[in-house]
Amino acid sequence: MDKVRLGIIGYGNMGTGHTHYILNGEAPEVALAAIADVRAERRDAAKAVVPESVTIFETGDDLIDSGLCDAVLIAVPHYDHPTYAVKAFEKGLHVMSEKPAGVYTKQVREMNAAAAAHPELTFGMMYNVRTNSVYKKMRELVRDGGLGAIKRVNWIITSWYRTQSYYNSGAWRATWDGEGGGVLLNQCPHNLDLMQWICGMPVAVRAFCHNGKWHDIEVEDDVTAYMEYENGATGVFVTTTADAPGTDRLEVTLEMGKLVCEGDVLTLYKLDVNEREFCKNAEGGFDKPPMQELIIETDGSYPQHQGVLNAFAANILRGEPLIAKGEEGINGLTLSNAMHLSSWLDKTVTIPFDEELFLNELNKRRAQSREKKIVTEKTFNTKGSH
Amino acid sequence: MDKVRLGIIGYGNMGTGHTHYILNGEAPEVALAAIADVRAERRDAAKAVVPESVTIFETGDDLIDSGLCDAVLIAVPHYDHPTYAVKAFEKGLHVMSEKPAGVYTKQVREMNAAAAAHPELTFGMMYNVRTNSVYKKMRELVRDGGLGAIKRVNWIITSWYRTQSYYNSGAWRATWDGEGGGVLLNQCPHNLDLMQWICGMPVAVRAFCHNGKWHDIEVEDDVTAYMEYENGATGVFVTTTADAPGTDRLEVTLEMGKLVCEGDVLTLYKLDVNEREFCKNAEGGFDKPPMQELIIETDGSYPQHQGVLNAFAANILRGEPLIAKGEEGINGLTLSNAMHLSSWLDKTVTIPFDEELFLNELNKRRAQSREKKIVTEKTFNTKGSH
Repeated sequence: MDKVRLGIIGYGNMGTGHTHYILNGEAPEVALAAIADVRAERRDAAKAVVPESVTIFETGDDLIDSGLCDAVLIAVPHYDHPTYAVKAFEKGLHVMSEKPAGVYTKQVREMNAAAAAHPELTFGMMYNVRTNSVYKKMRELVRDGGLGAIKRVNWIITSWYRTQSYYNSGAWRATWDGEGGGVLLNQCPHNLDLMQWICGMPVAVRAFCHNGKWHDIEVEDDVTAYMEYENGATGVFVTTTADAPGTDRLEVTLEMGKLVCEGDVLTLYKLDVNEREFCKNAEGGFDKPPMQELIIETDGSYPQHQGVLNAFAANILRGEPLIAKGEEGINGLTLSNAMHLSSWLDKTVTIPFDEELFLNELNKRRAQSREKKIVTEKTFNTKGSH
Repeated sequence: MDKVRLGIIGYGNMGTGHTHYILNGEAPEVALAAIADVRAERRDAAKAVVPESVTIFETGDDLIDSGLCDAVLIAVPHYDHPTYAVKAFEKGLHVMSEKPAGVYTKQVREMNAAAAAHPELTFGMMYNVRTNSVYKKMRELVRDGGLGAIKRVNWIITSWYRTQSYYNSGAWRATWDGEGGGVLLNQCPHNLDLMQWICGMPVAVRAFCHNGKWHDIEVEDDVTAYMEYENGATGVFVTTTADAPGTDRLEVTLEMGKLVCEGDVLTLYKLDVNEREFCKNAEGGFDKPPMQELIIETDGSYPQHQGVLNAFAANILRGEPLIAKGEEGINGLTLSNAMHLSSWLDKTVTIPFDEELFLNELNKRRAQSREKKIVTEKTFNTKGSH
């Protein structure tokens, strides 16, 4: 095999984006073999742009069963990410899943179990923002220990602006039954993954989710969450799809200084001494540890979705490392589920939480999920988004 | 009267600072007439710097009763701010109180009632940070309505770094019985006042206070609070005395844009249209309201404590406006009390809260207040602090 024959399941916003860069030659070790979409108009849209060598299927099942693909890229609504992943593993196909890994951790555990049963298959998660050299560097600086233990994490990530038209563009969008959540499920999987990738998982979450606060939707479009980590560090995560202009500012304070990532600029305020030691030993009451402010240079690379897909192909073909292992998808979803559950129960949720309880609470909301009244099916150009 | 004869009660960090700039001629309408401190070594320290015309008293009561003063500046530990204020009003003296107004709102209501019974007397609060032209401008921009309703408030104010030596510098410091709280009572009164001065009061608070997390003290030195406002806006307030370097970044998002104050630079991201209208009417799902980024110029003034005290004298002498009316001190303290109470009860507290309940909870902690083991009485130079 010198190219991975890829089938894309779901030709919506994301599937269309993936198709375009593959056809544009940006994934040289990937051969687009097939596309599946349950919507006739989306199949027509695909036919209009792909060469005849690409087979168009009505369902993901047909695509998986066709024998035309070595691997699938799953880009359907979130509930079905695990469904298709499990089917694909059972048919011996490699799997790249769009984020989030699923809607509830229980189904993602089943997906991860299916992956574990097929160690010969590659399982990747489309966490394209992990390819941003700024976050890679931030993770490296936090994880290598030179800055000491984490004391505080603040992420104000309110730059996911969406109009009402966005929410009206698909019947499944922003409903409990179709999407399983709002900004936490659709926009924030990247941030929740990066936060745990860089800082690790918290052990407790207290969140305040506001449903349909800024848009005519039934799910949350405004969230503030407080977190506690095992070592006593605390954190805040603030997000919305209604702030204009929003903010994207991640600040991590450690014993040896502070990292601030804002506007893709990473600044390190590096102390000469460990603050914990300084605090105990300083004679002056108002003394501050001496420090230097450094703009951290990176190689500036950000290969995006292409980078994730190319690493996926290289892993299948030559065992090279993935950008994000599929099994890691459960971490960000655990954060998202914990935030929802905390808000629903109006109390602090410890991690691991009761996954049955979460599913019961989600299903209550799915059962009352309202039909969207005004839907104008639209597929947007996601350029500049994620 | 062409000068206000002022008595300073309490010659600790703050009282010393006030004395120095008055003696330095920076408060030309104030004549320093008397100083009181219960500690012999502090009276000696005062004697060493003041001219003979300044009388030194052993107690604030003696100073108030002396007939030497037209006004008092109260700079004793917080619990006694209302005590001396009430006594001074009853003796016909004008009152300037250091912040916070008191430790619990119930005692501040008594102080405000005493002030109300003496409308002929001036009552000011030493909110010197209100004189910072950047915050004045921010208030003006938020309050004049041109930017529409507030949607979100985020203040990360973790720049109040203090060493263990600071906490060891006084027996009353950072104890429930001596100070009544930690970073919320001692460092944050400015920020809590400014937040309500600029954005108004929230109606609900959920806070997470950590006691003695970073220092050997019994009160809180790390706080994260979530707030809800009457119009549905939300906010986050994060503070500590242990982050180095800390952050001081106040962000207010409104319907017509966003204000960010960081490092005394005020930036306005001003939308051309109201986001609420744009959200409903835009055709594209990923469209964003057009906006411009403006650095807001101010006159750069920041007359600090001198400014507050000079306005106080001018109010007494000629009825000119105060920087902060004494009666407004209860607002910031209400926020602080609500944060403590929320953390103590481990639940959301609505404002107004049960003030008897707060006092009972505070008194429980005062009853168990531990003696400080290592105390080295020190008076620090507060230059560069507040």
